[in-house]
Amino acid sequence: MSKLVRRTGALALGFVLAGASGIGAARAAASDVRAQALALFKPLAAPAPGPRARVELGRKLFHEPRLSKSGAISCNSCHNLATYGVDGRPTSLGHNFQVGDRNAPTVLNARYHVAQFWDGRAKDLAAQAKGPILNPGEMALPDAAAAVAKIKSIPGYQKDFEAAFPGQANPVTYDHIAEAIATFEDTLVTPAPFDRFLQGDDRALTARQVKGLQTFMGKGCISCHQGLAVGGSMYMKFGLVKPYAHEGDPGRFKVTGNESDRNVFKVPSLRNVAMTAPYFHDGKVWDLQEAIHVMGETQLGVNLDRQETADIAAFLESLTGEVPAQARLLPQLSASGPRTAHPEP
Amino acid sequence: MSKLVRRTGALALGFVLAGASGIGAARAAASDVRAQALALFKPLAAPAPGPRARVELGRKLFHEPRLSKSGAISCNSCHNLATYGVDGRPTSLGHNFQVGDRNAPTVLNARYHVAQFWDGRAKDLAAQAKGPILNPGEMALPDAAAAVAKIKSIPGYQKDFEAAFPGQANPVTYDHIAEAIATFEDTLVTPAPFDRFLQGDDRALTARQVKGLQTFMGKGCISCHQGLAVGGSMYMKFGLVKPYAHEGDPGRFKVTGNESDRNVFKVPSLRNVAMTAPYFHDGKVWDLQEAIHVMGETQLGVNLDRQETADIAAFLESLTGEVPAQARLLPQLSASGPRTAHPEP
Repeated sequence: MSKLVRRTGALALGFVLAGASGIGAARAAASDVRAQALALFKPLAAPAPGPRARVELGRKLFHEPRLSKSGAISCNSCHNLATYGVDGRPTSLGHNFQVGDRNAPTVLNARYHVAQFWDGRAKDLAAQAKGPILNPGEMALPDAAAAVAKIKSIPGYQKDFEAAFPGQANPVTYDHIAEAIATFEDTLVTPAPFDRFLQGDDRALTARQVKGLQTFMGKGCISCHQGLAVGGSMYMKFGLVKPYAHEGDPGRFKVTGNESDRNVFKVPSLRNVAMTAPYFHDGKVWDLQEAIHVMGETQLGVNLDRQETADIAAFLESLTGEVPAQARLLPQLSASGPRTAHPEP
Repeated sequence: MSKLVRRTGALALGFVLAGASGIGAARAAASDVRAQALALFKPLAAPAPGPRARVELGRKLFHEPRLSKSGAISCNSCHNLATYGVDGRPTSLGHNFQVGDRNAPTVLNARYHVAQFWDGRAKDLAAQAKGPILNPGEMALPDAAAAVAKIKSIPGYQKDFEAAFPGQANPVTYDHIAEAIATFEDTLVTPAPFDRFLQGDDRALTARQVKGLQTFMGKGCISCHQGLAVGGSMYMKFGLVKPYAHEGDPGRFKVTGNESDRNVFKVPSLRNVAMTAPYFHDGKVWDLQEAIHVMGETQLGVNLDRQETADIAAFLESLTGEVPAQARLLPQLSASGPRTAHPEP
């Protein structure tokens, strides 16, 4: 096989794959593409989960609607684990059906991001988790103390926090609420056919997906979408080569105040991207191939043709993993206690 | 043991239990109470589920937010399987955060109800499932055709419906959407400690719960709350002995137009009642003991004292079952297709 690899290497790099060249050549070409890819990507494997009691507490809090003013919105409302960690809307609905200003990114594999939110304003998942609960347009609790009081008022949580954060005098804190949610989210990892391909399984991708991967690498998409999460590792101006209509959202500029961060956003991970339309921070584009074409134009200055966008889309479908059943298990939440604040309105 | 039962029978019926009378007497009394209870109740056991493909399709549709106009509301939004099939609000929030007019009843064990909704306007679970999807104040799709078109537009469902309703030329219909949801809901059955008690396990209830069961039977609660679901089997005027402030909701009168149905509601099942506050069709009462007291006054004309309501509440806690893990598993929903209607607003 290794001789064959060497013999067909040039052919593979010339993007002439499968079809007439036969299965042997296709396999060999796949090996070559893999060698290239392994310099840019890393196969994803489910990590060892955090302490069980903390994961289980996090599962409860992730699905806890009482962390919202209405009692009807939980983390899962916008990061729905039945729909690959997103809500399938351009932007999400919060308290009073207020429409949010950016597309809800998937919580799947988010642990691998350089920072959280589209503008990176939270350094990690725990910092992120603290935001929506208190955002008046989202879950809308008035402050951290209200969140802690609500959780403390629900019988059962005290014991759960003691088990999740052992040996602490005061385990129920807003920090611990966020840490537990993050520990649960850390388990939301979705290895996909692409990872099996990287690990040596030629059959994990179709010939078209291999071709799409080659195009993805050859056209330069990998300058941003690389690494374990195929993105999520850096910030980049959206509209690098050709302007994008941002409609007043200056991106990371809002966080840093640096002019160089205007229209700069975190590069999203492309894992499960075929399942998480609509696309971009504004959720304006519903079609994956259209999104690929816009990226080519605005970021790379290339006009990808229909074949190229279709091939890349085929490759991106190989990034669709399965959300582990354990991640999709709803908790059983305790009933409210006599002092639990009632939902409003 | 049987001798002991006979010897302590009179004592048990006299409500003097446990405490000084010792474990042997308590056990014997429990047997006596069981004999009484078995004439009124039946132990609940998980039924054989429907065809697997139909259950799995129903699981998807139950959690399908695209059955709503906003793309954000599913059956599970109000009948949350993380919170015993309810949303813990007096009345639910629908499209545009519109506040509903009656408390969302739990979907758990709902298969055993004589009819569905508080006023019994749907004859079974399938008929019920058709309501909220098209209710402008709830999921707000314009009509059944829109629901069918939405589902047909999502790749993957065609195959799921063919498997769930084999041999049909046109499997994706609104009737089948409702039937599949009902088939999933049929699996949402929660045997509880009370059932183990009925089946002969004296240790399944505490002495106080046995006493509460005796009070529940002795005071007449069982004239309405009886059978497999400890309720759910009949209609009854709310305010039978003492008026209840209905604030304009005439109950079943709205369905039948019969004056005799004014202020008549379906008697709710008490299974999992300790987990499904707030109470009554209007969700006005949060405290279980207060709800028990109101029932005694309005329905039975008795003024239950604190001890009696506390004992009954203890008994009702023995009706809390576990929601089976299988029932709490979220599906993996397919991505929308190019023709899937986008969420509004």
